[in-house]
Amino acid sequence: MPETFEQDYTLQQLKQVTKALNSGQFVQVRRMLAETAPCDTALLLESSPHKIRTLLWQLVDPDIQGDILEELSEDVRLGIIAQMEPELIAAATEDMDDDDLGEVLRSLPEPVYQDVLSAMDTTDRQRATQALSYQERTAGALMNSDTVTIRPDVSLDVVLRYLRLKGELPDGTDDLYVVDKDNCFLGSLPLSTLLTNSPDKIVRDLMDLEKEAIPISMDESDVAQLFERHNWISAPVVDDNKHLLGRITIDDIVDVIREDAEHSLMSMAGLDDEEDTFAPVMKSSQRRSIWLGINLLTALLAAFVASFFEGTLDLLPILAVLNGIVPSMGGVAGSQTLTLVIRGIALGHINSANQRFILGKELAIGALNGLLWSVLIAGVIAIWQWDFKLGAVIAFAMFMNLLAAGIAGASVPLILKRLKIDPALAGSVVLTTVTDIVGIFAFLGTATWFLV
Amino acid sequence: MPETFEQDYTLQQLKQVTKALNSGQFVQVRRMLAETAPCDTALLLESSPHKIRTLLWQLVDPDIQGDILEELSEDVRLGIIAQMEPELIAAATEDMDDDDLGEVLRSLPEPVYQDVLSAMDTTDRQRATQALSYQERTAGALMNSDTVTIRPDVSLDVVLRYLRLKGELPDGTDDLYVVDKDNCFLGSLPLSTLLTNSPDKIVRDLMDLEKEAIPISMDESDVAQLFERHNWISAPVVDDNKHLLGRITIDDIVDVIREDAEHSLMSMAGLDDEEDTFAPVMKSSQRRSIWLGINLLTALLAAFVASFFEGTLDLLPILAVLNGIVPSMGGVAGSQTLTLVIRGIALGHINSANQRFILGKELAIGALNGLLWSVLIAGVIAIWQWDFKLGAVIAFAMFMNLLAAGIAGASVPLILKRLKIDPALAGSVVLTTVTDIVGIFAFLGTATWFLV
Repeated sequence: MPETFEQDYTLQQLKQVTKALNSGQFVQVRRMLAETAPCDTALLLESSPHKIRTLLWQLVDPDIQGDILEELSEDVRLGIIAQMEPELIAAATEDMDDDDLGEVLRSLPEPVYQDVLSAMDTTDRQRATQALSYQERTAGALMNSDTVTIRPDVSLDVVLRYLRLKGELPDGTDDLYVVDKDNCFLGSLPLSTLLTNSPDKIVRDLMDLEKEAIPISMDESDVAQLFERHNWISAPVVDDNKHLLGRITIDDIVDVIREDAEHSLMSMAGLDDEEDTFAPVMKSSQRRSIWLGINLLTALLAAFVASFFEGTLDLLPILAVLNGIVPSMGGVAGSQTLTLVIRGIALGHINSANQRFILGKELAIGALNGLLWSVLIAGVIAIWQWDFKLGAVIAFAMFMNLLAAGIAGASVPLILKRLKIDPALAGSVVLTTVTDIVGIFAFLGTATWFLV
Repeated sequence: MPETFEQDYTLQQLKQVTKALNSGQFVQVRRMLAETAPCDTALLLESSPHKIRTLLWQLVDPDIQGDILEELSEDVRLGIIAQMEPELIAAATEDMDDDDLGEVLRSLPEPVYQDVLSAMDTTDRQRATQALSYQERTAGALMNSDTVTIRPDVSLDVVLRYLRLKGELPDGTDDLYVVDKDNCFLGSLPLSTLLTNSPDKIVRDLMDLEKEAIPISMDESDVAQLFERHNWISAPVVDDNKHLLGRITIDDIVDVIREDAEHSLMSMAGLDDEEDTFAPVMKSSQRRSIWLGINLLTALLAAFVASFFEGTLDLLPILAVLNGIVPSMGGVAGSQTLTLVIRGIALGHINSANQRFILGKELAIGALNGLLWSVLIAGVIAIWQWDFKLGAVIAFAMFMNLLAAGIAGASVPLILKRLKIDPALAGSVVLTTVTDIVGIFAFLGTATWFLV
């Protein structure tokens, strides 16, 4: 990706700020930060090594700390909040949206969280406890209470006068919500409808009944899918009795979509979705070593399998030289299938109705590629080692392993999903274990039986 | 991810439709499809094996084919269009947004494309040629011409009456654009401002001058970043002389964000971003075999390196058994770093100002993990094989390779980026080649020097 002018902009800032910091010109840095937009300061913090980040934060004007916290990615935000005084956290969260407020508070350790709550004024404390009452990763946790509601029996003219009286609308307002006297959601009145119809029309006759309200407990990924498929800008959220509780706006959905899309990438490498590129070394290495530990076990398992054939390897050391080829090819072919299936599941394309088809298709691809590459490798080895039997052996092993890779790559994620285990997280370990072991067995086994 | 009610819904449909198709009840299927919303039909097509998909499409009412094409992912859309008659394509693209129209036409082979153009009426043909004049993956290609423009010197009351006369607003309209008589962009008037101010106010005094217009040639990823950071719903697009050309809406941006986020995942496995899960076997296996071919070369290279040590392997077959462990650990550690750095570059967090820091950090993590795992593997091998020298050898190799993995994982993507090669696409091959060869050299080399 080419660096954007925005990134160049931040890049220059970062250099200037770092320079100023190193030469101890804190006053200047403070001024520079005061002149920067919250979203740019956020990017600046996210792009700064841990030490510099901490220093920078202390130079940020407390009045805008809240706005910046809202823009920060979760992992970075938590790192910063962990170092803030409860009073300052309370102050910073004052004008935060409900959803961000909830996210911040959830991330605090119990004692700190209590201190923060008690440092808040009553209204904020109520808002906070309310926001916390909804489950994480649900519509409730994405929701804001800043809805503009109207009654069905009034005329557009009344609505227009009401809005002028109100003076301003919350960001991302594209619909007004029509509710009855019990605050039950009846429908929505798009601003465009309000603006393009004569003022004497009645709301009830114009309101949109198509757009369904989102149940408070719906999973955030499902909410995102609804937004994406229906091109919504905002949507109302209701409880089980259809009472209007708040609304979700597209900007929060964009974050969900990015996180979901990144989840597979990060998990497949054994990383946290939100892992901070600039986290302290200790923290990062701890997180990653879990994955390395699991991989060591599978590698040892593979070695253990190979050890059955130590006799064969003793007789034919060339096998040891070539032993890595078949497993490696199986690993690549398998992870291609795995990646595709994991993505298919995430997008909702793969389901119990068509998974048998997927299995068949990937099996066919495995067979096709198996044929192609086994012929090729046979030729290469036959010429390199001038040993046609050896060529035949490795060709057979290659074919078997690419077949196994196709089956495993397609079935492992589907099985894991049924077991309620995240395929993106566990898939690649299970897969490589299969392809390694099948590969070694197929190659050394056939060799033992055929060459020795 | 749990299957959403939407997915369950589609799942049931898919089963019903498939059942109806298999029992040849085409009339019934046609009716079912007529009752389904375009976005649901799109998901249904995307979730269907290739054959069924083709059949289904023939049963879709031509009048809504355009709406469905707009909802389809690129790869699936192209597959379907490839089988359509030019006249039908022309008809289907009639009410398409400019950006989708452009995307569809770009995907057509030259002759077909000419036929489609000549099958269009004059206005559509102009719209098409216009849409095609903008470069792919730029603001121009994302843009629609459906802007609502007003003059700065009129009162809000005039604007309100104009809108009522107009009768309706394009989807996702949150701003009216203020232009002078030469159609130069002056600023935007948010609908919320229009609704919350008294009708006698003048546009010029209320219009928003903050929101910068997007230059037509800006890269789509940069546009997406602007939208995401500033929480825009729509934004005006201008040419070099500030003439208003159109606007970009958040729904198109969401697609860009998803594609960019998925790009890394898919490329790292050697797949096309848009690869269709249900593409025909031949098509898929061709795409993937390129990657397998490259991997075979690196595997052969590794085998070639190992062949230098055939003598050693002959003397100590146990080395052959353990030979896979060190490279595999290096591969995992390296791809963790690689993934993190690639993501950091994509998010604009990593740049020339802090890349040295990243290198240092990943080197430190490599050393730390190297220490941990070399001690562990030494213990395991010493006990398993009751050979402490061998344990020391593998420990040393492990440490060296994890160090190499850290350096390569961080530097390879940065170097590739400087060479204008996509790190996500080429990174993992280069990396595993490094970790394989360093791993084999370190292990077998030390063994030869130390044990033989």
